[in-house]
Amino acid sequence: MSAHPDPGADARTTGEPLRIAVIASIAHRTPPSGYGPWEQVASMLTEGLVGLGHDVTLFATADSITSARLHAEAPRGYEEDPGVDAKVYEGLHNAAVFERAEEFDVISNQFDFMPLTYSGLVATPLVTTIHGFSSERILPVYRAYDRRGRYVAISDSDRHPDLSYAATIHHGIEVDDFTFRARPDDHLLFLGRIHPDKGTHRAIEVAQRAGLPLVIAGVVHDQDYFRDAVRPQLGRRGITYVGAVGPGERDVLLGGARALLHLIGFDEPFGLSVVEALATGTPVVAFRRGSMPELVRHGRTGFLVDDVDEAVAAVGEIDTLRRRDCRDDVERRFTARRMVADYAELFARVAGREPASVSR
Amino acid sequence: MSAHPDPGADARTTGEPLRIAVIASIAHRTPPSGYGPWEQVASMLTEGLVGLGHDVTLFATADSITSARLHAEAPRGYEEDPGVDAKVYEGLHNAAVFERAEEFDVISNQFDFMPLTYSGLVATPLVTTIHGFSSERILPVYRAYDRRGRYVAISDSDRHPDLSYAATIHHGIEVDDFTFRARPDDHLLFLGRIHPDKGTHRAIEVAQRAGLPLVIAGVVHDQDYFRDAVRPQLGRRGITYVGAVGPGERDVLLGGARALLHLIGFDEPFGLSVVEALATGTPVVAFRRGSMPELVRHGRTGFLVDDVDEAVAAVGEIDTLRRRDCRDDVERRFTARRMVADYAELFARVAGREPASVSR
Repeated sequence: MSAHPDPGADARTTGEPLRIAVIASIAHRTPPSGYGPWEQVASMLTEGLVGLGHDVTLFATADSITSARLHAEAPRGYEEDPGVDAKVYEGLHNAAVFERAEEFDVISNQFDFMPLTYSGLVATPLVTTIHGFSSERILPVYRAYDRRGRYVAISDSDRHPDLSYAATIHHGIEVDDFTFRARPDDHLLFLGRIHPDKGTHRAIEVAQRAGLPLVIAGVVHDQDYFRDAVRPQLGRRGITYVGAVGPGERDVLLGGARALLHLIGFDEPFGLSVVEALATGTPVVAFRRGSMPELVRHGRTGFLVDDVDEAVAAVGEIDTLRRRDCRDDVERRFTARRMVADYAELFARVAGREPASVSR
Repeated sequence: MSAHPDPGADARTTGEPLRIAVIASIAHRTPPSGYGPWEQVASMLTEGLVGLGHDVTLFATADSITSARLHAEAPRGYEEDPGVDAKVYEGLHNAAVFERAEEFDVISNQFDFMPLTYSGLVATPLVTTIHGFSSERILPVYRAYDRRGRYVAISDSDRHPDLSYAATIHHGIEVDDFTFRARPDDHLLFLGRIHPDKGTHRAIEVAQRAGLPLVIAGVVHDQDYFRDAVRPQLGRRGITYVGAVGPGERDVLLGGARALLHLIGFDEPFGLSVVEALATGTPVVAFRRGSMPELVRHGRTGFLVDDVDEAVAAVGEIDTLRRRDCRDDVERRFTARRMVADYAELFARVAGREPASVSR
């Protein structure tokens, strides 16, 4: 034992706690009470980082729930309270983070592109998770901050060729929140936003041709689509719409399904419901596009198909898959623990090697 | 003559050139080719400051025209080019200003509230002209930056009781761009956006009851209103709609009018068209609200009225006013030169006394 311990020794060990700011979306509270995938990921990351012993400040709505320190500018989510002006509070929210930047070793941005535009004004490194591109029209801002953005892709498929990335980090889930079911009920399941992108109408067609009941769950994001393509099908031939579902119902519906039908009409950057289904043992029939080949192991945890005909055939073969394999794959690849560890490693790397320059 | 001149002497004289950044709106180019009052004011201020010998950088769209240095992020105005994402380019535009903040003695914000949210991250003082409040919902951001915002009201009537202000500076116009007309034609004039706020329907009613023709000019900002309240009245009893008008037509229409009818349905923070009408010698009949009592001298350059009946009566008395008095009042109170001088004085004051603190 030395009388003069080296005060820098702890800081050089690998496990040194970092001072981390997490910027959550303020569309909803964190974690979201209903829909809100960005807020869900921000919450999981925040709680996981706290669990690893890091010193975390979560920037989120005032009604958010966290074991980290909470800094709130917006009283509630702008999607949940018409009195909350989205632009005003997005500005105040981002400003609050960067005005406190000196207090943090790294800032994790889970809230789209606007934080990038503040990042050149502070020395603290920003790591930006790109939760998909809503449109090519948002690319100019990602291009402008490519050199200092330290982008995280949420799937390899979502990497844009114009941008450079610090890492791909797949989302994870709390596997213990999902109950493994060795024997499902008889229904197929559609779970997600009711929107053409998510292919609700294709799920209906496949279920009808396969002669199996279909449960549809999720919030309606496109009213015209729901009215024209979904509602006329309800109540006949075993097509049921149960609305938005909470975590408990979600677990029951997922675990009871023979398969999740994920016949998407866009290159989905990640599909949390796909991973959640697998966690309950339910295989997934998905269109072979976007992140699906990264999430579903064809012929083992589901089937990747190219059209409705193939989807119908895949449903016919669904019993050839072992539900235990689905669960095992999630435990191996898609746990919250793995996701948090990936981020923690990236943050340590970024915090340790950052130059002081603040130019773009 | 001293062999050792004091190198600081110039900097202490009143006329020392300042390094000024002007943040224009990027909805349109600066100056606007058509509608665009914020861009119009930004342009006039910029050119005027250059004329006074200041070192000015204008942040505006790439197709803007200025004698200052131009810094552009957006290729064109987001209202004019659907390929320009408003949020993306507003972020890049504001970031560009603040990333260059050290190059300026003062930053003049003519583009709403978002620049405030960057202002705490730099030492350069920001002066924010509040071009009216679109809604009470935007107040939180002005309140948050009240201590460092150095707000400029564009009329005393537009000062919000919750905020503190550095100055009220009325807009000015280039008086020489407007031709004084001692003898008008016979028509009344409505000039402005076709929108219930601007009271197009009231102008029609007043003109009809006064038995005078009415020319309506301006862009349609509310299609339903135009269809229901304006279009059915056109073509009968001397009601004519001429669409949006450029500067030359504007001058002709204004100078030829017996009166401008400005029967607004909101507390308009300033009315450029009111001042422009006066510059051509045309008196204004305006509702007594918002900035109108500051712009129109009742009984001398127009009439302030409270309802349509009073407006009709005022039109009947319009010939009791002297058109030369209207022009004279503009030359006294509403020139671009006066506006620019007011801003230049404020900027010098702000630049000279600024503390280094960057806290909100």
